[in-house]
Amino acid sequence: MLEQGIEGASVRNIAKEAGLSLGSLRYYFHSQEELMKYARELVSERITQRVDKIFASDKNPNEKILEVLLELLPQTSKLGREPKVRLFFKTLAVQPEKTAAVDQDGVYLAVKNVMSNLLLLNFIKKNLDIGIETERLYALINGLALNSLLNPDELSAQRVEEIILVHLNSICKESVK
Amino acid sequence: MLEQGIEGASVRNIAKEAGLSLGSLRYYFHSQEELMKYARELVSERITQRVDKIFASDKNPNEKILEVLLELLPQTSKLGREPKVRLFFKTLAVQPEKTAAVDQDGVYLAVKNVMSNLLLLNFIKKNLDIGIETERLYALINGLALNSLLNPDELSAQRVEEIILVHLNSICKESVK
Repeated sequence: MLEQGIEGASVRNIAKEAGLSLGSLRYYFHSQEELMKYARELVSERITQRVDKIFASDKNPNEKILEVLLELLPQTSKLGREPKVRLFFKTLAVQPEKTAAVDQDGVYLAVKNVMSNLLLLNFIKKNLDIGIETERLYALINGLALNSLLNPDELSAQRVEEIILVHLNSICKESVK
Repeated sequence: MLEQGIEGASVRNIAKEAGLSLGSLRYYFHSQEELMKYARELVSERITQRVDKIFASDKNPNEKILEVLLELLPQTSKLGREPKVRLFFKTLAVQPEKTAAVDQDGVYLAVKNVMSNLLLLNFIKKNLDIGIETERLYALINGLALNSLLNPDELSAQRVEEIILVHLNSICKESVK
């Protein structure tokens, strides 16, 4: 999909790329649409798994939170191409009927998770509205991701990390890093 | 384009919609691509004009700055459908060769403009990095716009205004509103 666009991501081409016969892939996916739906859900699931793994790791909370947010962005993800593919799906879905609900979006779930953790740790500045801050951070992540997809050379990984850090520090009582 | 997608926005359909003969439209635009390029630039130009008009108006600076930012977003624009169409073009441009440079984006120019004005008025908190803050605000605007396109019923105009205000207040010395 990233190489040839959505038109290139036919059941036929994907079977070829995966070294499967067309028949065996068709056994599981009757149409490109079914295949794409599966892929979209898989990408979201992988992002969620990765986020859970980071949260469960043995680092200090500040590090984990920053790592989770960076993992959501194409520029800084270590996981791989999932954040880019996720946004590709998102921008494809300009027709409302194709749009996945926001609560099926691994990135949205991760942002909510980050905010819950910041609250739990008592890191968040007083008087902030958590609902608004969740939407603000989610929009920031989506905007940065969109930028990476459209103007890949514009924001470096380092720049993206700086922006995320500035944002985190602006909502936290003490400097995250 | 918003009604029928990019496929529907053929030179033929646009001539029909505009009450022009196909021949006369073809005289100016030899291909759909040329027409789309013109439309994209026009949308960007209109956004810039609108922003200039707001800055030149007779209100106090705080009001102008907030009004400019709200004008960039589909949820809160009073100008019309330009912000939505602009984002539609942006998400269409997932192939790098179709992408317009960021400095041809009326919204990016407006965000830079807002930041310059905040600086000029000495509103910005000390120790903020203007480059980072410009990218952060631009990403926030793009993320909010993307959200309106994909999940139109999720963020109300009022919610969007709250998010923008929280953001502005967080980078300004005094409350903007």
